[in-house]
Amino acid sequence: MNIAVAQSGGPTCAINASLVGVFKQGLLTEDIDAIFGSINGIEGMINDELINLKSIIRTNEDMELLRQTPSTMLGSCRYKLKDHEEDPTDYEKILETFTTHRIGIFIYIGGNDSMDTVVKLSAYLAHVGSDIRVIGVPKTIDNDLPVTDHTPGFGSAAKYVAATSQEIIRDSSVYSIPSVTIIEIMGRHSGWLTASTCILRVNGEEAPHLIYLPEADFSPEQFIEDVRKEMAKHKAVIAAVSEGIALHTENSDLENFQSGATDVFGHKYLSGVGKYLERLVADRIGCKVRSIELNVMQRCSSHICSRTDIDEAERIGRHALRAALDGNTGKMMFFKRVSDVPYAVTIEMTDAALAANQEKMFPQKWISPEQNQVTDAAISYFLPLVQGEVDICMKNGMPVHFHRPLQMR
Amino acid sequence: MNIAVAQSGGPTCAINASLVGVFKQGLLTEDIDAIFGSINGIEGMINDELINLKSIIRTNEDMELLRQTPSTMLGSCRYKLKDHEEDPTDYEKILETFTTHRIGIFIYIGGNDSMDTVVKLSAYLAHVGSDIRVIGVPKTIDNDLPVTDHTPGFGSAAKYVAATSQEIIRDSSVYSIPSVTIIEIMGRHSGWLTASTCILRVNGEEAPHLIYLPEADFSPEQFIEDVRKEMAKHKAVIAAVSEGIALHTENSDLENFQSGATDVFGHKYLSGVGKYLERLVADRIGCKVRSIELNVMQRCSSHICSRTDIDEAERIGRHALRAALDGNTGKMMFFKRVSDVPYAVTIEMTDAALAANQEKMFPQKWISPEQNQVTDAAISYFLPLVQGEVDICMKNGMPVHFHRPLQMR
Repeated sequence: MNIAVAQSGGPTCAINASLVGVFKQGLLTEDIDAIFGSINGIEGMINDELINLKSIIRTNEDMELLRQTPSTMLGSCRYKLKDHEEDPTDYEKILETFTTHRIGIFIYIGGNDSMDTVVKLSAYLAHVGSDIRVIGVPKTIDNDLPVTDHTPGFGSAAKYVAATSQEIIRDSSVYSIPSVTIIEIMGRHSGWLTASTCILRVNGEEAPHLIYLPEADFSPEQFIEDVRKEMAKHKAVIAAVSEGIALHTENSDLENFQSGATDVFGHKYLSGVGKYLERLVADRIGCKVRSIELNVMQRCSSHICSRTDIDEAERIGRHALRAALDGNTGKMMFFKRVSDVPYAVTIEMTDAALAANQEKMFPQKWISPEQNQVTDAAISYFLPLVQGEVDICMKNGMPVHFHRPLQMR
Repeated sequence: MNIAVAQSGGPTCAINASLVGVFKQGLLTEDIDAIFGSINGIEGMINDELINLKSIIRTNEDMELLRQTPSTMLGSCRYKLKDHEEDPTDYEKILETFTTHRIGIFIYIGGNDSMDTVVKLSAYLAHVGSDIRVIGVPKTIDNDLPVTDHTPGFGSAAKYVAATSQEIIRDSSVYSIPSVTIIEIMGRHSGWLTASTCILRVNGEEAPHLIYLPEADFSPEQFIEDVRKEMAKHKAVIAAVSEGIALHTENSDLENFQSGATDVFGHKYLSGVGKYLERLVADRIGCKVRSIELNVMQRCSSHICSRTDIDEAERIGRHALRAALDGNTGKMMFFKRVSDVPYAVTIEMTDAALAANQEKMFPQKWISPEQNQVTDAAISYFLPLVQGEVDICMKNGMPVHFHRPLQMR
């Protein structure tokens, strides 16, 4: 039997580690011959664009470099399958690819949209009487997948965001004049990543003094009042703001900072909340103010990835293949936390339908009554996820990445 | 005798290492009693706000943490001294601070504006017959100081920019559709930092496919033509763009993206060239396009600092104090490169007046005839400066910073 694996959705630092996990487990399994990588997620299965992974991952060093390389080595997609009752074309093509290459197992590494693909594809295969199995491996820096304690990719993103926020705190506090610094952090609907900046407290930081999440109430008026209060206490006020905070203004100032474009899943591309708040502070308070967008760096800064995250991402990839070999299909693997201190998780399995197209929000119980901070209780949740560093392979003073073969670029 | 040291200008990853260098050399010098730090650069000397450094840097671990902590531990300023003939008030106050605290040597760590202070203050002291000595230690991520081969702080910034650009290259190449990614890098007038992205070539990267510097000719029309040419060759085109590229448009589109505000030295605060070019690509080419501003992270990301940079910054701080002890004043320390491979520099001394208020531009000989790339010859200049990593002290999964005493915050 051969197997196939694909990566989907937005890049993370850990999605290649999950690929390595599937690959390693495949190597260890006698029944498995070829391990195919599907180029650009499910698109590669539809278009029969596969690559033999054993031909490009040749050495232990290759595996280690791939584990350390951010983004999706196999490319990605944001392709949504139609219901097969509505239009079976894609499914028929995928089945043809499966059949042509004798593929019995398909592992799909992705976020909540990708779990939608796992659900639909496994249902279709059952419908046509195929025993090909489909298993989902979660990943997203947003940490917004239901069921799982956390998602691979989140811990590395949180570590980057915390380390960088700490450096921004140092940077912003050098001058004698009062200032406000706004750090804009990814998270369309859920504020997990923004909230994770609270872990800086355990290393003695008071900042971020204000933390705003999509799950909390937000108003520009209250924001300005919050900032004024913090300025009375601190010379350099730092606010961590989720890109997805919901602004309910009467006028539509914010529209200027958002493209309004949507992706194929109907998600609005957001950007510019930081710039909006920067101008608001400049207009209303008139002090020195700067907004900083952490942009794609928060999802691709492998040079400061979390070892816990990378190791777990590899482990959950291995478990996914084992689950498929055990005959499961239409499932998503997930982490179940057994204990915070010492930190322990088990890897379990659930119906992918429970995660597909759904989002897990940051809990209200961890949001301060003032809606502008995260409580200490959240720290013990976040802290284990950023622990440990990976020995990054350096060459010429720069990290070494695993390079995709030329024909894939 | 006592001595004083201060830090000025924009933060870097290496300016605290130079402070440690001065401090260590002070500890080693029998004639020196107290080592004072001046709070917020020259402002602390004017206002008699000093701190006894031995009271806050107490252990070897403190010294090591301070070396690894970005930004200016003593605070900074952008204060410009008037000519003493015009208004001697500040000078008289500084002299009083010197006298009150029996300070015989003042080391000023800063950029070209700070060297202006070194020149003026040393001239004033000579004018009033004082034998107090003033020595400048260069620092700036811009690398634009004359005389010196390079500036402390630049190597760490270049290492961060190269590592991050490489990660952005991975991140931007995952989808099957063509895209353009614009990385906006600091540099008001000189493009050293943007140019340094060329070192990625030695690790096998083709990107950045386009590099635009303030020293080169730039036109939006040519930019669009360049991008189109690269898109014919690469699916994901990456352009590294200096924030200070000179745009000569007939209409004033760019004005929308620049605040127009100036600092006390008359420098315009720039921002938004990336966003401007992003919109230009969207309008004219209509493909997927993203701009990424590396913002203050490029000057404060100590977690990936260059060991060469940090070690040199400490060394030049030590040499500065030795030069002052030898009786020199009004001088700036500088690096003279002896050889690229193996890399070797000596530390020398020049009149601070030769660096004050002047900028060293990126050489025309290293700019491609098309004005959109940097030649390979520049690589051997840049490469030694990013070599080596510092063993970053981690706690709870995050870098540990040296924290200033509460009274200084």
